[in-house]
Amino acid sequence: MIQTSKNIAIIGSGLVGSLLAIYLKRKGHAVTVFDRRPDIRTIDFSGRSINLAMSNRGWKALRKLGLEDSIKEIAIPLDKRAMHVNEKPVYFQKYGKEGEAIWSISRGILNRRMIDLAEEAGTIFRFNEKVWDIDLPEAKIFTGESEKSEWKEYRYDLVFGCDGAFSRVRHKMQRRSRFDYSQDFIDVGYKELTIPPNEDGTHKLDKNSFHIWPRGKFMLIAMPNIDGSFTCTLFLPFEGEVSFENIKNENEAKDFFKTYFPNVRKEIENLSKDFFSNPTSAMVTMKCYPWSYWDKVALVGDSAHAIVPFYGQGMNAGFEDISVLDELMNSHGDDWETIFSEYQRIRKPNADAIAELSYRNFVEMSSKTANPKFLLQKKIEKRFAAKYPEKWIPVYSRVTFSERPYAEALGIGDRQEKIMQKIMQYPDIEEKWDSDAVENEILNLLAE
Amino acid sequence: MIQTSKNIAIIGSGLVGSLLAIYLKRKGHAVTVFDRRPDIRTIDFSGRSINLAMSNRGWKALRKLGLEDSIKEIAIPLDKRAMHVNEKPVYFQKYGKEGEAIWSISRGILNRRMIDLAEEAGTIFRFNEKVWDIDLPEAKIFTGESEKSEWKEYRYDLVFGCDGAFSRVRHKMQRRSRFDYSQDFIDVGYKELTIPPNEDGTHKLDKNSFHIWPRGKFMLIAMPNIDGSFTCTLFLPFEGEVSFENIKNENEAKDFFKTYFPNVRKEIENLSKDFFSNPTSAMVTMKCYPWSYWDKVALVGDSAHAIVPFYGQGMNAGFEDISVLDELMNSHGDDWETIFSEYQRIRKPNADAIAELSYRNFVEMSSKTANPKFLLQKKIEKRFAAKYPEKWIPVYSRVTFSERPYAEALGIGDRQEKIMQKIMQYPDIEEKWDSDAVENEILNLLAE
Repeated sequence: MIQTSKNIAIIGSGLVGSLLAIYLKRKGHAVTVFDRRPDIRTIDFSGRSINLAMSNRGWKALRKLGLEDSIKEIAIPLDKRAMHVNEKPVYFQKYGKEGEAIWSISRGILNRRMIDLAEEAGTIFRFNEKVWDIDLPEAKIFTGESEKSEWKEYRYDLVFGCDGAFSRVRHKMQRRSRFDYSQDFIDVGYKELTIPPNEDGTHKLDKNSFHIWPRGKFMLIAMPNIDGSFTCTLFLPFEGEVSFENIKNENEAKDFFKTYFPNVRKEIENLSKDFFSNPTSAMVTMKCYPWSYWDKVALVGDSAHAIVPFYGQGMNAGFEDISVLDELMNSHGDDWETIFSEYQRIRKPNADAIAELSYRNFVEMSSKTANPKFLLQKKIEKRFAAKYPEKWIPVYSRVTFSERPYAEALGIGDRQEKIMQKIMQYPDIEEKWDSDAVENEILNLLAE
Repeated sequence: MIQTSKNIAIIGSGLVGSLLAIYLKRKGHAVTVFDRRPDIRTIDFSGRSINLAMSNRGWKALRKLGLEDSIKEIAIPLDKRAMHVNEKPVYFQKYGKEGEAIWSISRGILNRRMIDLAEEAGTIFRFNEKVWDIDLPEAKIFTGESEKSEWKEYRYDLVFGCDGAFSRVRHKMQRRSRFDYSQDFIDVGYKELTIPPNEDGTHKLDKNSFHIWPRGKFMLIAMPNIDGSFTCTLFLPFEGEVSFENIKNENEAKDFFKTYFPNVRKEIENLSKDFFSNPTSAMVTMKCYPWSYWDKVALVGDSAHAIVPFYGQGMNAGFEDISVLDELMNSHGDDWETIFSEYQRIRKPNADAIAELSYRNFVEMSSKTANPKFLLQKKIEKRFAAKYPEKWIPVYSRVTFSERPYAEALGIGDRQEKIMQKIMQYPDIEEKWDSDAVENEILNLLAE
């Protein structure tokens, strides 16, 4: 169906805002993107975001625009986890089947590229212009130097709020009656650290792995960059015995790395310095509903559903929002009220599902990875999935390497978990875990 | 312990704000109350709030100030529910033991009285003065005509946010990192309606009852006023077959009352007229944490924990906040940081508990009251509680007629519910519900 050209404002020039701009330009709309920050192409960006892991849902949204190959040039495929457990050699866990990988990509580099592409497509960018208020029924936005300064008024046909977890657009919607909203912070913060490249520009660790140093209540991860460096992220409780609060100077930071991460000791100088030059960030799950206002305003990406980063799906979920919007625009032409109401109806349960899965992954990583019973359960699941790949697709694969709805992955995952709870009650499971009897029991439970 | 006199601002002149002002004045502080609205004593107030049901926790906070008796003069004790079920005569259910009652009181009348009392105690009131911003670490507040007008700045030692469910003070705290917050609206709205007094000034329905017309997905309640009238509240879904959305004119309102509430037919003219002159209001559960900022700012009452009204505990919970603050001020003198941190630590689980209980009461009223299994369960519980009053105190009594923590009531209630779930599985429970065998089973389960 053909859409009448609209005059559209997008608030936020991040990944979701710039990708949405390209989609809308391709459909013939006039698009202006506002951002309170300066043009990311003109500034140094430094560590306040975990490297991104692009997976199937993200690639699908790029592929539809023919952008997949050019973005893959700035990404590195990771087909496995590299587990750095103390007093053991590094060991590897394949993510999926042959050819399945997640792709490490720097948020800053990707964002610059996306803005270039959006600009080439004819998008107008208004950087350093702060949106302070939105008139929702009129699709008007008000910008200015400060909340109290003189404001400039713009009127559009449609406004998209792609302004992230602390969205100003959502903030306006939130003051209305019957708008459900929640923000829940976790007690763990994160800090970005860097492992620089070798002198010859190569990577210091295996380049095609997602590196994890799990340590119970905290962990370090590292993802490769195309310049040979690794972006590391330290996840650590804000308060408590081993915590951000209790690392107060560079010596304490060095002690911390020496004690818990002896196999990165060559990097300790760098890591300890970064520790105090980079900020500590908080992580939040934000949910809200509705996501739209009439046929005028819609939230897309983190502004509608910010999640904790432990499934690597934040950007992928935002890009999938855009794929869904694209399909709805194709089916419903100028009926923006239907486009928006179908969009939120379809996406809300999936956004809630990936929020839940991401939060569970945080709990799993921080408290279960050291539990022998849990590790045994994972071993049994893995063995069974390898033998019956059509009967047991792990949740991780459903989320990461498929395009089926997140809510379906969550539902099937819950069912698998229930089966495994029963299997773990099996007498002498520690000895019998790889027996035919246990295998048959799983088959029976699956057939129920 | 003696407290140094502080200069204190309270935002909000509602029930909680004015009661807190009296407490603080009695302790020798200078207290200014700001309210964006005009002085409620100078205006007609009309129906946007369900009549209040003062119970033990509310009375306790007034009793400590010696105000219980004078407030009881403007309240009416209700010792029972009057159930108006179609095609049955009205029947009554006692709330508690002899002498136990909840007290019906008009929010407007009580608020006027409380402001009088606060003023007599030396509180300064600044009505029609809108607070737009708060500097939390400096305890500064900024007021003005509009968000964009020139602002007046005040600096205090302490600021209390008693500004209700849509609190501006909390709104400021909410923009900070690591502040947890949620607002959840229910799909049912409410509208206030009036049954006027008889010509001789007496009440048209039994005066000492809380009247309920349960109708499954909706219900009407009525509470007496001292002028002989009843304030009725109609709870009705916003959308759906029988809903606010589907009552579009006075005739449809009349049909609605005739069909579903035949025993109020003498009042239908009045009720139908009110239907369109009074607004439809939404109901929300709001939770947040923390409730304070350093030793500078604290939230009290609905601003910290707004709940749906189905347990009649909103004001009681807010007044209990003040009782707890009072005890902490007595123990900790000038250590406001400890006062505030203990206050939120003690109150948060109880606020969450009464939020949960209130929401469950909504679910119970709207979907379970017609379920025969549920009614049988209640009958068994009632019989057992009458026979073993020391072994089985119903949750309603724990919430309404005790001063024990809400969280305890919730915990014990959950245990009772588990026991009753087992009892309801008892073979032929429909016949055997009042047998010794069932009674002994409950005793056994309680002893486990």
